[in-house]
Amino acid sequence: MKILLSNDDGCQAPGLRCLRDQLRSRHELVVVAPDRNRSGASNSLTIMNPVRVQRHDDGSLCVDGTPTDCVHLALTGLIDLKPDIVVSGINAGANLGDDTLYSGTVAAAMEGRHLGYAAIAVSTVSIQPQHYETAARVTLHLLERIQQQPIPGDTILNVNVPDLPWEELQGFAVTRAGNRHRAEAAMKTTDPRGRTIYWIGAAGAEADCGPGTDFHAVAAGKVSITPLLVDLTRHNMLEHLSQWATQL
Amino acid sequence: MKILLSNDDGCQAPGLRCLRDQLRSRHELVVVAPDRNRSGASNSLTIMNPVRVQRHDDGSLCVDGTPTDCVHLALTGLIDLKPDIVVSGINAGANLGDDTLYSGTVAAAMEGRHLGYAAIAVSTVSIQPQHYETAARVTLHLLERIQQQPIPGDTILNVNVPDLPWEELQGFAVTRAGNRHRAEAAMKTTDPRGRTIYWIGAAGAEADCGPGTDFHAVAAGKVSITPLLVDLTRHNMLEHLSQWATQL
Amino acid sequence: MKILLSNDDGCQAPGLRCLRDQLRSRHELVVVAPDRNRSGASNSLTIMNPVRVQRHDDGSLCVDGTPTDCVHLALTGLIDLKPDIVVSGINAGANLGDDTLYSGTVAAAMEGRHLGYAAIAVSTVSIQPQHYETAARVTLHLLERIQQQPIPGDTILNVNVPDLPWEELQGFAVTRAGNRHRAEAAMKTTDPRGRTIYWIGAAGAEADCGPGTDFHAVAAGKVSITPLLVDLTRHNMLEHLSQWATQL
Amino acid sequence: MKILLSNDDGCQAPGLRCLRDQLRSRHELVVVAPDRNRSGASNSLTIMNPVRVQRHDDGSLCVDGTPTDCVHLALTGLIDLKPDIVVSGINAGANLGDDTLYSGTVAAAMEGRHLGYAAIAVSTVSIQPQHYETAARVTLHLLERIQQQPIPGDTILNVNVPDLPWEELQGFAVTRAGNRHRAEAAMKTTDPRGRTIYWIGAAGAEADCGPGTDFHAVAAGKVSITPLLVDLTRHNMLEHLSQWATQL
Repeated sequence: MKILLSNDDGCQAPGLRCLRDQLRSRHELVVVAPDRNRSGASNSLTIMNPVRVQRHDDGSLCVDGTPTDCVHLALTGLIDLKPDIVVSGINAGANLGDDTLYSGTVAAAMEGRHLGYAAIAVSTVSIQPQHYETAARVTLHLLERIQQQPIPGDTILNVNVPDLPWEELQGFAVTRAGNRHRAEAAMKTTDPRGRTIYWIGAAGAEADCGPGTDFHAVAAGKVSITPLLVDLTRHNMLEHLSQWATQL
Repeated sequence: MKILLSNDDGCQAPGLRCLRDQLRSRHELVVVAPDRNRSGASNSLTIMNPVRVQRHDDGSLCVDGTPTDCVHLALTGLIDLKPDIVVSGINAGANLGDDTLYSGTVAAAMEGRHLGYAAIAVSTVSIQPQHYETAARVTLHLLERIQQQPIPGDTILNVNVPDLPWEELQGFAVTRAGNRHRAEAAMKTTDPRGRTIYWIGAAGAEADCGPGTDFHAVAAGKVSITPLLVDLTRHNMLEHLSQWATQL
Repeated sequence: MKILLSNDDGCQAPGLRCLRDQLRSRHELVVVAPDRNRSGASNSLTIMNPVRVQRHDDGSLCVDGTPTDCVHLALTGLIDLKPDIVVSGINAGANLGDDTLYSGTVAAAMEGRHLGYAAIAVSTVSIQPQHYETAARVTLHLLERIQQQPIPGDTILNVNVPDLPWEELQGFAVTRAGNRHRAEAAMKTTDPRGRTIYWIGAAGAEADCGPGTDFHAVAAGKVSITPLLVDLTRHNMLEHLSQWATQL
Repeated sequence: MKILLSNDDGCQAPGLRCLRDQLRSRHELVVVAPDRNRSGASNSLTIMNPVRVQRHDDGSLCVDGTPTDCVHLALTGLIDLKPDIVVSGINAGANLGDDTLYSGTVAAAMEGRHLGYAAIAVSTVSIQPQHYETAARVTLHLLERIQQQPIPGDTILNVNVPDLPWEELQGFAVTRAGNRHRAEAAMKTTDPRGRTIYWIGAAGAEADCGPGTDFHAVAAGKVSITPLLVDLTRHNMLEHLSQWATQL
């Protein structure tokens, strides 16, 4: 397949490099990724400044922008390849439940979808991953399956892979996104010059993580595959709200 | 009501200042907003660096972070006020259709909701707005209605107000988010030193903008109110995908 | 006099505001300053991105750039005023000895000089200043003296004012810049997510701080005035090095 | 020799890579450089945020900070190597005359000197250099000469190399820094969304560029070597200013 590969950990990140090396042997590949770590970038777009592109020795195109910028730029003029699919990852760290909203990895996939391409986001469920090859192999496997039986063109798959050797994986599960508890409180501290700073709190623990959720799958050693839809309208509230609004 | 007010155009932006001045007379208000323009920030969180807070003469707390950082920080320790609602805006420019995904204004409201608070995002549909007071009056009106008849606690309302004098508004419409065409291509140009730069393309024109959509409402001079839900799972695809995945 | 006022602590900083309020009554004033804290910016110029200017309610022009950008922009087209002098400050914190090289406050003055204007940088010698009015009064005093007896047009004065009530000042001293010991080591620590970060070390203690230096003056409660020259050539080494180079 | 190598164009820049490859064969080398292009950084220090370090496959340490941060961090704890000299470059573009004040390349060398090490900054005099190997060979040559006859430990050499094949170089010249005319005016334009932006003006043309200056040397096809001294005090004005100040 023809693949646009991006991520949010930056073009030097080991997760992207592992996936690139694995995909390269069987697929046609262009890498367009941020020039540095952009974790937490969500779907942010660089609109106040221009972005620049640097071609590295290995052919990667590194952009001083967000993951969304990278995919947007790649698909609206930067590269000649017309990809069959956009792949984002391998992210170092889970993108489960509410994480997807803040994730730059998922955002890169969403932007691919937004511009009309099928897209997969791949994360490995560990902050200091030991088994990127497992996640890379999972990705290859999914692409093969998609070649056999295409998924609808407007699909985004959010894939989370346990950080285990391939043999220890417990299979694949199609899941819905669970929910986390409220994030932990911001941490108030001081810098070395004695001035107050705040660190934004880490993601909360799992709240809705029962059977059927992505949290549940990875906890059981399974690869979690969640189909995503970017439709923020709360459709089932339209009628009630319309009544409410008559009194405005 | 007790209100946390934020935005993405920054704490000096005229839209926020107009809304603050209007809300202040009837409500208890704390302003926590970015220290500069953060348009396009989406739900991005600052996780690689700490953030700092500066108290301005007028009591506003200005944060060198994203809109999401501001609301997150405010609600997890920075301020004492326990708000009844989070209000974000008035944004200079529409947040219609797909814009909501990239919008920092909407993200601030989403973060309020994510942390358990009702939330409203307010935008005026013009890049160089002439009638912020109209949008501010609409906001006051909505808050009054909410006091009479509360909306469910987990509701986010995305409100877009035509940039017209109050008398010329054509009423209120509860809408679903429409869709835009693909964004315009990135603009390739050179900086004054002759090096290549790219500007990310502007949002595309309306694609799905028929009756019932937010685009349609504002084009008709109405205030558009879209209830939002942050659930990215594509539920109606779970079954099909499960079958597909059995062959993995 | 006609004055261009800038700083590196940002256009909301209390030091700049105090000085502005004091200068305004007797002088014609334009404020062009960074939109946020740019301490440590040195003479850095924003050349990879454009900068933007926002006019605040009080007439200040706030630039999303460095102190050098602000003065450069102001004097090459942004403002109509043709100033008699560029004033930078009041900085919260000393700019003594080697600090001048890293200081954005001094850099703003240097840029004024570089573009052909006399310039003064003013700092108060305390990180949490109590007596900005003292430094402001010192500045007014210096400007008055300059009006009586101009200093050469290519002069930069680096002024450091003890953080004391005006009556407690022990006079004025013309000084040379002293030297600090090596900066303290970078501080290695972890962020709340457990990843390694480094904080750049604080400036070292005074090394060359004997009579005649700026350190010595402020320690004695005096206002230190150091004339600066931006000529980085080590002239007295040219001959020796020329001999050395004959063997290249 | 033991060498700390840094630059301001970033750890992926071809100038740094060429120099690294050349130095490696004969010297012990550690690379600590910015993770992206930091041209124009001057001596700026990152003091409001921590910095992070990423080790690349080739052993380079890439820092999300300025050139000064890199050298500071390297020499105050990050690396074990105690270098004989700090080398910064090869910069893509001249650092002649007033440029030195804004240059991140020169700043990295200054920081080395500031922390007690001899230092060399190397630039090639072309924005799109064709002959990095020439500048690398010049650097090797200078290091060899330094080994034969050391230069005083507190010396910074600012070296500018014509972008020519080695055979076409016209020799070496020890020079003083010349001066440029005022920078060109800031360029006022609009971004694609119609909002006003300013690009900081390019450096001005040569003003003081007669015999003896760095400008003159490179124009004649010679390698320019300027010894630098960071002493900003205008010593010959101290007496006059002291008289002036008696009336304060």
